[in-house]
Amino acid sequence: MTVTNPFIESRLKSPEEVALLLPRDVTLGCSGFTPAGYPKLIPPAFAKRIETEQKQGHEFSIRLYAGASTGEELDGALAKTGALKLRIPYQSNSYLRNQINAGNVDFIDMHLSHVVKYIEHGILPSIDAAIVEAVDVTSDGKVYLTTSSGMSATYLQKAKEIYIELSDVHPQELKGYHDIYLPTHHSKGGPIPILSPDDRIGQPYVQVDPSLIKGIVRSSARDASAEFKAPDADCIAIADHVLEFIRDEIKKGRIPKEYLPFQNGVGNIANAVLGSMAKNDHFHEIQMYTEVVQDSAFDLIDAGKLQVASTSALTFSGKGLERFHKNINEWKSKFIIRPQEISNHPEVIRRMGLIAMNTALEVDIYGNVNSTHVMGTSMMNGIGGSGDFTRNSHLCIFMTPSLAKNGDISAIVPFVSHTDHSEHSTMIIVTEQGLADLRGCPPKKRAELIIEKCAHPSYRDRLRSYYETAKQVSKGKHTPHHLEEALSWHVRFLKTGSMK
Amino acid sequence: MTVTNPFIESRLKSPEEVALLLPRDVTLGCSGFTPAGYPKLIPPAFAKRIETEQKQGHEFSIRLYAGASTGEELDGALAKTGALKLRIPYQSNSYLRNQINAGNVDFIDMHLSHVVKYIEHGILPSIDAAIVEAVDVTSDGKVYLTTSSGMSATYLQKAKEIYIELSDVHPQELKGYHDIYLPTHHSKGGPIPILSPDDRIGQPYVQVDPSLIKGIVRSSARDASAEFKAPDADCIAIADHVLEFIRDEIKKGRIPKEYLPFQNGVGNIANAVLGSMAKNDHFHEIQMYTEVVQDSAFDLIDAGKLQVASTSALTFSGKGLERFHKNINEWKSKFIIRPQEISNHPEVIRRMGLIAMNTALEVDIYGNVNSTHVMGTSMMNGIGGSGDFTRNSHLCIFMTPSLAKNGDISAIVPFVSHTDHSEHSTMIIVTEQGLADLRGCPPKKRAELIIEKCAHPSYRDRLRSYYETAKQVSKGKHTPHHLEEALSWHVRFLKTGSMK
Repeated sequence: MTVTNPFIESRLKSPEEVALLLPRDVTLGCSGFTPAGYPKLIPPAFAKRIETEQKQGHEFSIRLYAGASTGEELDGALAKTGALKLRIPYQSNSYLRNQINAGNVDFIDMHLSHVVKYIEHGILPSIDAAIVEAVDVTSDGKVYLTTSSGMSATYLQKAKEIYIELSDVHPQELKGYHDIYLPTHHSKGGPIPILSPDDRIGQPYVQVDPSLIKGIVRSSARDASAEFKAPDADCIAIADHVLEFIRDEIKKGRIPKEYLPFQNGVGNIANAVLGSMAKNDHFHEIQMYTEVVQDSAFDLIDAGKLQVASTSALTFSGKGLERFHKNINEWKSKFIIRPQEISNHPEVIRRMGLIAMNTALEVDIYGNVNSTHVMGTSMMNGIGGSGDFTRNSHLCIFMTPSLAKNGDISAIVPFVSHTDHSEHSTMIIVTEQGLADLRGCPPKKRAELIIEKCAHPSYRDRLRSYYETAKQVSKGKHTPHHLEEALSWHVRFLKTGSMK
Repeated sequence: MTVTNPFIESRLKSPEEVALLLPRDVTLGCSGFTPAGYPKLIPPAFAKRIETEQKQGHEFSIRLYAGASTGEELDGALAKTGALKLRIPYQSNSYLRNQINAGNVDFIDMHLSHVVKYIEHGILPSIDAAIVEAVDVTSDGKVYLTTSSGMSATYLQKAKEIYIELSDVHPQELKGYHDIYLPTHHSKGGPIPILSPDDRIGQPYVQVDPSLIKGIVRSSARDASAEFKAPDADCIAIADHVLEFIRDEIKKGRIPKEYLPFQNGVGNIANAVLGSMAKNDHFHEIQMYTEVVQDSAFDLIDAGKLQVASTSALTFSGKGLERFHKNINEWKSKFIIRPQEISNHPEVIRRMGLIAMNTALEVDIYGNVNSTHVMGTSMMNGIGGSGDFTRNSHLCIFMTPSLAKNGDISAIVPFVSHTDHSEHSTMIIVTEQGLADLRGCPPKKRAELIIEKCAHPSYRDRLRSYYETAKQVSKGKHTPHHLEEALSWHVRFLKTGSMK
């Protein structure tokens, strides 16, 4: 459906026209969250202009802020110009990642719940232009976002100029899915009034000063969402361990029978857990308070098990989006899209007592988790919301296959090459091999559990050997380490291509 | 003043009589928080009984839970029996620390805001006996605590038997200082209704089942609090950097003119900051929302600058306590003593937007902070509340002198030997050399700031050299490391006694 009103008509421009309005030295605040609802026409047009003018000797410098990761048309296109200097707060584009790890693009890897404050307080360069995808804009400045909220509200309110990509991909009935609320700081507005994932506390639109809207571009471009993959055997094994553990916690009275709201990271393992919940007769209706909803939500809906999912983005596959559109009126009670400040807010997470399930890159024998840095130095995607949820949830579960790179990397290592979540905060570690419940365990007990329950058998003896040597040679016997060898697995991998 | 009532009379026992009632295999939940208000008569009597009966061939096994650290009469006395098997969640007794680091006592180093849930959910062994210091007990089971709240309310409510040390050290007017409130979990009770540090939301006593009170011991024993030391030049230099930074943040509009509530760790540096605030004409009335109040609060009171301090313990020196007693009625509006679940609660910390100031043991060039593990393996005291405050505060500041052990240890290292607070969470690093504001900085910028602003000149060249080599040899240039050498400073110190 095409939306139109005299205000929109008065602002209509082509992507190329908007691209010409952007400064050569510019900070962009864009919509988009892993990777739903990002602008897809203006950034490539801007990239084209940059390439043309670079040849004429002009220099460009771009600082790009988004909600989380975005698609090729934004991250990829701008990174390829060579003019991208800074990116915050999360990314997953392969070209951009390579540029970051080559040292060509600065990347600030932030807790997603911190971004609003950093922008509001001017800790980062201020935003020149917001570029945001929307389904409608009114003459009094109400912007109705598409399938993600992310940082859009803040960027729209802080930008000097606003550009909208007006999408006709989604029906107008998408209006009403969003719940835009940004807390005042320092108690001024009282507690955030969310007690349950389905509490709506804000407005379905972002209010902006309409005079700042300098251009509106009509768009029929779709998000480049990955197709949904069926979970492999490792993912299913991990999911089985997680579900068995949750049932056991309910038996022990630590989780109520009606569960607690679930938070669920992005990717195959996270999807496998939800898929298994949908199939498992012992699981009934659940609530989610999370940052990204993927196609796995449909499995829960089909099984009649999804009560409500609060999220910062609906990141569906092409087929998934079709299904969403068909049911868009009926499902308005199932999904709430919130700004990432609220989807990831420590106050709300702690109060509701979430069950947080996130993916680890590697875990050491004492339970320290690396979520971000491959071999300690290269950025994968970023910490995203994993710190927000881990630190404040009722229960945090880290999941990873025990092996990577065809067995040349063990996800369980003597000493993590980077710590994102310390042993004080992590609770449950799961691989396809098994589950280690670290709560209430002193360090040496944790090491024994992780090695015996989680490590792959092909690395278990090596880990036992490291740990036994550590106990012998370590000065402190509280958390024994053989410091000379602590990072040797990573060093070996970098030299030989294998941790073995 | 001696409190007495028929109920107390009916329960009076000697410490030795109580000691005989404790099981040989026992989990004790004790009052006490860094180190105020811990039991001082029953534990030594129990230790004496243990030593006697050990000689007769009896075996003892003790698991000791407290709020945070306690004194020699509790931690020291029980550790010296050799029967102490487990201690949570924080400690600072030198004998106990040595036993932990020799591998003889298990220690679980926990976020203080996690302890209540772990006890309530039975993740740790259940509590056989609570031993709690109080100023009064009523026949209907109202227990009025002394100078700390800590975990006492939970231990009293969960213990099978309760023993009270009824202290006559404090005037009865101490009643009314406490605000006992424990949140229900999972949103059931709504938000925690604290919007300001002076909000009182609970009761001035802990309600227990009086039939569980099996013994009351009269006590005139005083807490073994350290005398207050005047800050040295390094502490004053650190304080100066912090105050200048806070003034600058106010100028930039990031901190309101009336400030935000301050949280302040334990020790000389923390005290120096408050002392300097008291003296500095640019600082006016402040509020504190913290876990421990020390004598430095008097400096603020004398300067007319302390509006209110919310805390989990009043840990005064002998002289400080005298002064507190003299002003006990007048100061009832100045101090609120809360359970550590509330003093350290993420929901409240995030909502109010605290300025958190804590001490680091070491910091690496990318801003990862080690607060707990000396050379990666030996426990110092524990993480305490530093994780609770760091992760959820408005602003977190880590402070440390740049050198330790007469210059043989640099507090700034290439790679921390243990991470308690990751680079995502840390914001400001301060040594006597200077202050590094890491907010909004990508990793390499952080490294340059920390080396140039915070490192001691005697280590600066070595750090520059590590960093330059890292940039050359590192596979990933996002967070460059020379993994072979990353922990070499610690290894060198362990071998030669110096990082040089």
